[in-house]
Amino acid sequence: MNTLHRPWFQREGLALLTDFYQLTMMAGHWKEKRTHRELSFEYFFRYLPPDTGYAIAAGIEDFLHYFEHLFFTESDLDYLRSLKIFDEAFLDYLRSFEKKCSIRCVPEGTVVFPFEPVIQVEGPILEAQLLETALLNMVNYQTLIATKASRICLAAEGDPVMEFGLRRAHGPDGGLSASRAAYIGGCNSTSNVLAGQLYGIPIAGTHAHSWVMSFPSELEAFRVFARLYPEGCILLVDTYDPVKSGIPNAIQVFLEMREQGIPIRPAIRLDSGDLAKLSKICYSKMQEAGLDNPLIVASNDLNEDLIADLKRQGARINSWGVGTQLVTAYEAPALPGVYKAVAMKEPEVPWAPVIKTSFNYEKATDPGRKFPVRYFNAEGYILGDMLYSEEEIPLSCGTIEGRSRKHPHLPRRLENTTRMEALLRDVFVEGKRVIPALSTSEIRDYAGKQQKSLAEEYTRLRNPERYPVLLSAAMGDLKHDLLLMH
Amino acid sequence: MNTLHRPWFQREGLALLTDFYQLTMMAGHWKEKRTHRELSFEYFFRYLPPDTGYAIAAGIEDFLHYFEHLFFTESDLDYLRSLKIFDEAFLDYLRSFEKKCSIRCVPEGTVVFPFEPVIQVEGPILEAQLLETALLNMVNYQTLIATKASRICLAAEGDPVMEFGLRRAHGPDGGLSASRAAYIGGCNSTSNVLAGQLYGIPIAGTHAHSWVMSFPSELEAFRVFARLYPEGCILLVDTYDPVKSGIPNAIQVFLEMREQGIPIRPAIRLDSGDLAKLSKICYSKMQEAGLDNPLIVASNDLNEDLIADLKRQGARINSWGVGTQLVTAYEAPALPGVYKAVAMKEPEVPWAPVIKTSFNYEKATDPGRKFPVRYFNAEGYILGDMLYSEEEIPLSCGTIEGRSRKHPHLPRRLENTTRMEALLRDVFVEGKRVIPALSTSEIRDYAGKQQKSLAEEYTRLRNPERYPVLLSAAMGDLKHDLLLMH
Repeated sequence: MNTLHRPWFQREGLALLTDFYQLTMMAGHWKEKRTHRELSFEYFFRYLPPDTGYAIAAGIEDFLHYFEHLFFTESDLDYLRSLKIFDEAFLDYLRSFEKKCSIRCVPEGTVVFPFEPVIQVEGPILEAQLLETALLNMVNYQTLIATKASRICLAAEGDPVMEFGLRRAHGPDGGLSASRAAYIGGCNSTSNVLAGQLYGIPIAGTHAHSWVMSFPSELEAFRVFARLYPEGCILLVDTYDPVKSGIPNAIQVFLEMREQGIPIRPAIRLDSGDLAKLSKICYSKMQEAGLDNPLIVASNDLNEDLIADLKRQGARINSWGVGTQLVTAYEAPALPGVYKAVAMKEPEVPWAPVIKTSFNYEKATDPGRKFPVRYFNAEGYILGDMLYSEEEIPLSCGTIEGRSRKHPHLPRRLENTTRMEALLRDVFVEGKRVIPALSTSEIRDYAGKQQKSLAEEYTRLRNPERYPVLLSAAMGDLKHDLLLMH
Repeated sequence: MNTLHRPWFQREGLALLTDFYQLTMMAGHWKEKRTHRELSFEYFFRYLPPDTGYAIAAGIEDFLHYFEHLFFTESDLDYLRSLKIFDEAFLDYLRSFEKKCSIRCVPEGTVVFPFEPVIQVEGPILEAQLLETALLNMVNYQTLIATKASRICLAAEGDPVMEFGLRRAHGPDGGLSASRAAYIGGCNSTSNVLAGQLYGIPIAGTHAHSWVMSFPSELEAFRVFARLYPEGCILLVDTYDPVKSGIPNAIQVFLEMREQGIPIRPAIRLDSGDLAKLSKICYSKMQEAGLDNPLIVASNDLNEDLIADLKRQGARINSWGVGTQLVTAYEAPALPGVYKAVAMKEPEVPWAPVIKTSFNYEKATDPGRKFPVRYFNAEGYILGDMLYSEEEIPLSCGTIEGRSRKHPHLPRRLENTTRMEALLRDVFVEGKRVIPALSTSEIRDYAGKQQKSLAEEYTRLRNPERYPVLLSAAMGDLKHDLLLMH
């Protein structure tokens, strides 16, 4: 692979992909000789996108790769020197920067919920703080898109979904990250050739209106295209009038191919107009012409709601191309994930929990280092997650009693649990990677299995139930006490 | 500069940053020996974001750089070979691919409007088609963000605006592209250090809640920060309770600094709560303490509407930090820009206009190669744009008569014009760049001047007037005739 073409996360030494204040705070801690103080940070998000019942965690391997290959280059140091704010001694420290953080996280592709730690970063305050921006950048966006893709695939009810959003994505690797996350979330292919090359995602495509317009007639344009690409040939029938021109021309070409003995599955794409009505017309015209089992691809600003509605109206569409709405997560284009300190440690003493209270009691962070556990029922569906403290022994199965996150003095319970699993696993221990990375397609397979562990109440496209994320009694007491102190 | 850290647009040979169908169509034209056929494409957008009266064209120099450095690497060809769909002879053609397209475009930073050509690409059909996806990717997103930034800066009424959206941007160079476009649109600085290094954008920042939480007390955290960074020290006062704790502690530190004879401008940041009310409280408490002319920075999901409303309520904020809403263009996160063929040319014959009609008369493209002209009034405000054909001599000043774009048989006029300017200029002629690139700060200056050429009716934040983009009489007749033919 040409190194120049590596996606960001596969490049090395991306230390400046950060907010300026991370570096000024880092220099501040260094100058104050607070280098041995450790912080425990958690990545979590406060809200899911509207009407969304779960998220698919994504972008995690990208972040882990970034961390593994993080260093300051000489040109980075030259740039920082030019700002005339950092001591030369601090720049020397950056030059010899050694990573010591430990990172625990869910396997990429895991279904996750608001307010539970998805990634934990622990280590020297200088280093753990520096990672915030890149982590949020990579994980917020890809989690948003994998989640959106998962919903779109649910709406498509098993029909293949192709992502082709590159032209409306937010910059070149806004597009690349989108292709990766959409694939993890369940899409079958992408139009983005670079994503195919870099991530091994299957690529797919049809032809554009300009292909048709560049020929003297639509019929000739179709005929040439079908001759060149008999396998997987999909004709775009709406450059002019699809009913009067596009579909009759396509049918003629499919019949000509058949006469010539070329095996071809009749396949068309609709990119405008009333997709339900047009798809039915196209289907019946192809049926009348003896062209059975046609592939009818639809595109044009599709999202999960429109796909579900077209299905409800009996549209004869059996393959979906989604672009803008998917890669921008149009209705809510940012996941509000944050990276918050939950505990602090001085050398030679135990970890001490910290809390950010602000005004709003309900917005307060959950203090302390956590050990999140997921509970399952006998059918394999997930029932709820409990955030234990690091020191606790998780309750085993049956009825599990905990506390409300928002009102930590109030009891809440999970019933009929039969199995439990730790949510997080160690990936880096003191700067060293301890488990290998998964490939994009392995992550996609895992995400697919994860999604099947969700009961219907969480996969509804509108107004889903809220999945329970509880505090253990000990964590509830801790939060309650710290809130009263502030 | 470390080449690994180059933003995408500064990298070379990005030929696979494209949709798969561009390559299958390209191979199709090549196999059909249609290599001498030329197409004329236009980039334009059909709609502005909601309630937006103008756009600032951005991302253009990135696209031009991409084009200048476009080639297929051996690893690209290996990947394409692995798809088992392309002939070896076609891959040889790609290896020796020579660029012959001509490109005309507005200078980056120009104010532009729906349905006018912002970029024209003309050349061999194989090559001109290939450029579509990268062009749309780079120009759609950055135009969207430069436009959003311009509106936010208008709402801020001259107060400095800092972009700090990296953590919610769509991937690493979703963030980089956002920082660049936001700066072009009028932002004063970014928190994104990599954008500072790569584009020379001023960088800025304060400190995070975690800085405060990592100290035994807020007071000590402030004291240390102010001592380390007396110049430009901005204290974040809402980690705990800003009124009871944050602002009194900040005031104490500013007074201590003053006692020590350290010149310091009292400066705080609010990141939560009722920003109008809190800023007034903070301002009056600082006034009471004898701290005049404080800098009060606000952040927390700000956009142009909220800034305008806070201004209306007399908030004492004089510096604004914007993130998520800016870099995602939250309310409408995609600009629907398209790249459409408008004319076709066979060797030895003149260009022939083409049209894409689809169903909707009003959605039909404007056929033919165009020469867009912008008219100004005596005060220097822009009055309207007229799309002439390439062959026409533009009408000079006074009352200019043209046609409605949607209803090309209906007359429309521009009155009291005193000056005109060609909208586009040649940048590439047959593959060779003929004018040099501008720096990001030059583009920003130009965009600032452009915005001042807009009358108030177009810069209103809600329900602005629609700027007139007319067809010349000849272009109106052409469109009318072609629509009747289809």
